[in-house]
Parts: sequence; C-alpha cells; structure tokens
Amino acid sequence: MNTSTDEHFLREAIRLSRHHMLAGEGGPFGALVVRGDQIIAQGWNRVTSTNDPTAHAEVVAIRDACAKLNTFRLDGCVLYASCEPCPMCLAATYWSRVDRLIFAASRSDAAAAGFDDEWLYQELPRLHTERKMPTAQAMQAEAQAVFQEWLAKADRIAY
Amino acid sequence: MNTSTDEHFLREAIRLSRHHMLAGEGGPFGALVVRGDQIIAQGWNRVTSTNDPTAHAEVVAIRDACAKLNTFRLDGCVLYASCEPCPMCLAATYWSRVDRLIFAASRSDAAAAGFDDEWLYQELPRLHTERKMPTAQAMQAEAQAVFQEWLAKADRIAY
Repeated sequence: MNTSTDEHFLREAIRLSRHHMLAGEGGPFGALVVRGDQIIAQGWNRVTSTNDPTAHAEVVAIRDACAKLNTFRLDGCVLYASCEPCPMCLAATYWSRVDRLIFAASRSDAAAAGFDDEWLYQELPRLHTERKMPTAQAMQAEAQAVFQEWLAKADRIAY
Repeated sequence: MNTSTDEHFLREAIRLSRHHMLAGEGGPFGALVVRGDQIIAQGWNRVTSTNDPTAHAEVVAIRDACAKLNTFRLDGCVLYASCEPCPMCLAATYWSRVDRLIFAASRSDAAAAGFDDEWLYQELPRLHTERKMPTAQAMQAEAQAVFQEWLAKADRIAY
C-alpha cells in the first residue's frame, strides 16, 4: 500500500459514502476507480434511489469508469471502497481486471449495520443444493452445446 | 422444480445465449426473470459489446426487471440462467430477492469454455491477504463511523 496516496483516495471514498447516504440515495457505501493520480469514476450505493439491486458503489464506479474509458478492462486502475466489497462487487472487481483493491470497513462492520455481505460470503461457497435460495439444474447438455459453438466461433472476443 | 414450465423458460434462456453470442454481443450466456407465466425481462451477456464487465446475462435481466417493475426487490419472481451464475451474478440474485434460481450448464462447463467463473468460486472465500488480487485495508474506524450514522438515520430504507 502506497500510504499517503491510498489514504487520500480512500478518504474520498468514505466521504462519498457519507454524503450520498445522508442525501438519501442508498446505503453507506462509496467507491472510486483511480488511474495514476486521476479519479476516473466515482460510485456510491444507489440501490433504493434507482431501483437497482446491483447499484452498489463498486459496481457503479466500475461501470462508469469503463464507459468513460471505452473499455471492458480496467488494467492499470485501482479500486478504492469505503467497505470490503460484497461477493457481487468483489467478483465484479475481478472481472474488471483492476490492478489492486483498497478498502476501509470490514464485512463484519457491514453486518453490524444490517447488511447481508458477511452472510453471502458464507452462503455462496455452499453446494447449490444446500443454499437458502431454492435452486435446481436442468438441460445441461443443451447449454453445453452453446459453449461448443462459442469455442468454434473464430471471431469470439475473450473477456 | 416445476418441470414443464421451468424447462420452457430455461430453453428460452439457452436460446437467448446462443442467439446473442452468435450475433457477436458477448459470451454465450442468457437469462430470464419470470413472474408467474410472464417473462418480465430478458438478459444476455453484453460485456464486450457495451464495454461493461458487469453486463452478465443475469445482471442485465435483474436490472431490467427492476426497472420495469419499479422496485429493487423481485420477490415472487424466478431467475432462469443458461449457466450457473458466477459469484457476481449469484450474489446479485440474492440481492434481488428472487424466489428461486434455475440454471442449465455448470461452472465447470463455463471453465472448459474459457471463463473464470469456477476460479472465482475458489478465489472469493480466501482471506483477502491470500487472494491473487493485491488487496489492503486501511482507515477502518473512519468508515465504521459512517455505518453508525446510517444506523442513526431515522428514515433509512433497508434493502
């Protein structure tokens, strides 16, 4: 961790989390995508104000950064988050290919504030037959055939 | 699993995965949000065509269903996915509060087709100090203070 620079941007992510929570836009979470010394995108939780359960701060910041940079890969960027990302946001962080992740509060702090992050970290690794969400699998062969067509597609774009 | 109804909608999710993959819009993944006998929203992978690493089929379908129904909760709905959701999409499925999840291909099928889903399922449960993504935590107390303000906010909207 590059202490002074990282703390500068992390402080800004925390500021965003407070400002937009107090403004009634959603939960107390903020995030930034930074490249070098430049803030590429800001995000804050907008689940309840935009009716989008995926509008967590990190997802919002990643989507906006990609839109601004016209890319689906954020190599060379760092994600700052006011709280440890939930599994949705952590996987989004990996899919975005940012270089590093810096966060402030822990999943246990989020749990104490009433959020499911910590529980989801326990739930997702379970077999789908043992999760709380009723889940079933069917027609696997039909879907496997589409993957074969993907592999045979000469102009496919990996991501 | 309600076999005939579920297979009908799952077949449609697989059809979407093939159609939009062959059209060059992204990876071979499709999803539907269904309420009763009605398709509320369709989704397909649009990562590479829209420069959005979070535009997986399930996330696209969930976001669109919520937009159409003007809600951040999809209680009473079922999510159909042509492949087992990746951790981002599975957590989004939980956050959306759908009643059930039905999927076709497995994470191992996706891995065989070149996707990171299975690897992410192994990576996310690790301690952040042991993950491949360089990660650090700082300023926890400053962010905890914002959670205290959230809990003290009389008009907060849970999600």
